[in-house]
Amino acid sequence: MFWFEDVPMNERVILGEYTFTQENIIAFATKFDPQPFHTDPEAAKHTAFKGQVASGWHTLTAWIKLMIEYREKMTHILGEDMPNRSAVSPGLRQVRWHLPVRPNTTLIYDFTTTAKKDWPSRPQLGLVERACDARTADGTLYLSFINLALLKRRPE
Amino acid sequence: MFWFEDVPMNERVILGEYTFTQENIIAFATKFDPQPFHTDPEAAKHTAFKGQVASGWHTLTAWIKLMIEYREKMTHILGEDMPNRSAVSPGLRQVRWHLPVRPNTTLIYDFTTTAKKDWPSRPQLGLVERACDARTADGTLYLSFINLALLKRRPE
Repeated sequence: MFWFEDVPMNERVILGEYTFTQENIIAFATKFDPQPFHTDPEAAKHTAFKGQVASGWHTLTAWIKLMIEYREKMTHILGEDMPNRSAVSPGLRQVRWHLPVRPNTTLIYDFTTTAKKDWPSRPQLGLVERACDARTADGTLYLSFINLALLKRRPE
Repeated sequence: MFWFEDVPMNERVILGEYTFTQENIIAFATKFDPQPFHTDPEAAKHTAFKGQVASGWHTLTAWIKLMIEYREKMTHILGEDMPNRSAVSPGLRQVRWHLPVRPNTTLIYDFTTTAKKDWPSRPQLGLVERACDARTADGTLYLSFINLALLKRRPE
């Protein structure tokens, strides 16, 4: 089911959700993005954001964890090691942070495969383009990007 | 010097460097990208990477820390709060991981402003496009992306 050939097009897959809390916003930002509107709820009130917001790199990074968990879960369901476990990503496109993410916001991450392409330099692989979104339960869009991934083709 | 109007075009700025070690590769990946080729040097030998590599999200995230440190340093040099401290980023484009980053690799991060544009919905801001690279000292390119940032314009 998970070889390149089997990836369904235009089907929305829910990866999972992640809740941004005051605590994990501070923990991430202290280490990687130490700006007052992320690390200091009080100082954040006096910035352009008028309050604490999550680092955009935090909202982006949450995706890969959910993607890995999703793949692990599918492996268990399918009863076999997924062939695309060791696939690598050639990159991301059009990363957009649409709205600030406030503490106690839960984002639901999903992706939809929008294109499947040959990868001539490594013919045993195929490229998938995935439109990735993170939204609150009411459908408001906070983050979107396009993920490119190389998946193994079914052996002949 | 750092209002939108003053940002120099096509001038390469060195942000700083970051060394990926076995320890910080494991620490980041355990938390955010728990795949064996990142978290387990021994298991990594039996994956497509033939050894441990840094998470791409780790190499990407290292940039924002260096950008913040650079802005802090410039603030000290200029003796004033930089007007673009609270600038927000509308996004990233064309994030590409060109080569696996092995333990004990030091990447030098730089950026070059390649475009400056009006931002009609918020006329007090201007958009800069920055071509961002991370290379080893011999010039080999490991990571590249385009960062979009909104900077304050000089008050009239």
